[in-house]
Amino acid sequence: MPAAALTDTSKLCVHTITTKPLSLDEALEAYPRAGVRGITVWRQALEGRNPAASGKRIREAGLSIVSLCRGGFFPAREASRRQAAIDENRRIVDEAAALGAPLVVLVCGAVPGQPLGESRAQIRDGIAAVADHARACGVKLAVEPLHPMYADDRSAINTLRQANDLCEALDHPAVGVAADVYHLWWDPELEAQIARCGRAGRLWAFHICDWKTPTEDLLNDRGLMGEGCIDLRGIRGWVEAAGFGGFNEVEVFSNRRWKLDQRAYLEEIRKAYLERA
Amino acid sequence: MPAAALTDTSKLCVHTITTKPLSLDEALEAYPRAGVRGITVWRQALEGRNPAASGKRIREAGLSIVSLCRGGFFPAREASRRQAAIDENRRIVDEAAALGAPLVVLVCGAVPGQPLGESRAQIRDGIAAVADHARACGVKLAVEPLHPMYADDRSAINTLRQANDLCEALDHPAVGVAADVYHLWWDPELEAQIARCGRAGRLWAFHICDWKTPTEDLLNDRGLMGEGCIDLRGIRGWVEAAGFGGFNEVEVFSNRRWKLDQRAYLEEIRKAYLERA
Repeated sequence: MPAAALTDTSKLCVHTITTKPLSLDEALEAYPRAGVRGITVWRQALEGRNPAASGKRIREAGLSIVSLCRGGFFPAREASRRQAAIDENRRIVDEAAALGAPLVVLVCGAVPGQPLGESRAQIRDGIAAVADHARACGVKLAVEPLHPMYADDRSAINTLRQANDLCEALDHPAVGVAADVYHLWWDPELEAQIARCGRAGRLWAFHICDWKTPTEDLLNDRGLMGEGCIDLRGIRGWVEAAGFGGFNEVEVFSNRRWKLDQRAYLEEIRKAYLERA
Repeated sequence: MPAAALTDTSKLCVHTITTKPLSLDEALEAYPRAGVRGITVWRQALEGRNPAASGKRIREAGLSIVSLCRGGFFPAREASRRQAAIDENRRIVDEAAALGAPLVVLVCGAVPGQPLGESRAQIRDGIAAVADHARACGVKLAVEPLHPMYADDRSAINTLRQANDLCEALDHPAVGVAADVYHLWWDPELEAQIARCGRAGRLWAFHICDWKTPTEDLLNDRGLMGEGCIDLRGIRGWVEAAGFGGFNEVEVFSNRRWKLDQRAYLEEIRKAYLERA
């Protein structure tokens, strides 16, 4: 059953990358004015800042910290680089703990030309090597399956079924899933795999935006909710039926929108969220 | 097991769209010089020409006609437009029969914003409405699953599993599958679904090219074999193990290469085919 319309912004979260031109301080002023209640912090927004002090500032601004984006990128041809990725992910977990982010989103990684099966095994091993540290820090890791058009160099985990399989194989209390409609909307198995993820207690994040027709750029031409073809209410209905009660996170990469006034854009996000998400 | 290197061009087929700037007459002169032995004809190459006479000319040039591209595009919001698509596909079958093409490749279609389940049902009904006519004409229909990045407006059939399911549901001797590495390479189920397709006797066409990193354009930035990350020999090995013995069809949409001298490009295709496919 499609989800009911959203009548308030109590579950509206925005990713800092969505309003990339804003500094973290600017975002902390602008987000609450637009009714935004949650924030997912991209690491570049923390560059040169103390994560613990930043976390304190964010909470003082009245925003819930939903997650830190992003860890992952585990596969590499050389063992030394795979170890470096594991070390880096442990540092990202530390950063999340200092910030007060309960979740790190993982873009799992891929190496162009390396067999996908090999990358998938390296991803599994990489997450396994970080999971205990994450648990000890009170931070969870969310595998985000990425659209198959990113299978060459961004992620060898491209469907929710794969993410579910990976989580089952790892069977670790700190490892779950982030579901993003942009990556998953086309999948004929989506409803069943969302339900499976929910039954396993592993559906930990829900990212929204839209798929534009035409899409001019593989990376940075995402649409705002309602601008494209994704059945957002249908998918949100499945996610809520699976027991998810967290934030709806607006994650939009858009060369066009990054050029606009970001405060006016946040009003547009709020409107699209209430009318079309 | 990966396929053995190709030692000759006896199974080299080129799609006319690959060398789009060439007229059909120019292609018929240039393809055999480059060692090409098969041709898949795109309908635009036949515009203003008599298909039967064109078929005769193609065969006289020493080329095997592998298929006609493309039928499909069944889904539409209005019943009248769905009927028009069925009528058009019957005409395409007639054109294939006149040309002497044994196969019509189907790009199944999708309507932005229409639920994918609905488009899939319309695709099934559309193919069912054309299949008997195809059989009577001695023409087969090959469902080509398209990459999920085309699920908005080109095809709601986006994995080989879906194409296999669709063929099983239709269970018609004139309905099978065209497998294109560009669309399918990322799929963790690919080996199993190729085997399934072969067991059902429905693997009827094999299209090759490569996926470039980065890919600059969703439609027209395909790479030549060896230029990208697709494990071509691995996939060809699965296809051959599934019993496929037909042509390897080079289908490359490339804004960049369409600007080059097409005869020199055909030599490049031949070289890439022998060294990297």
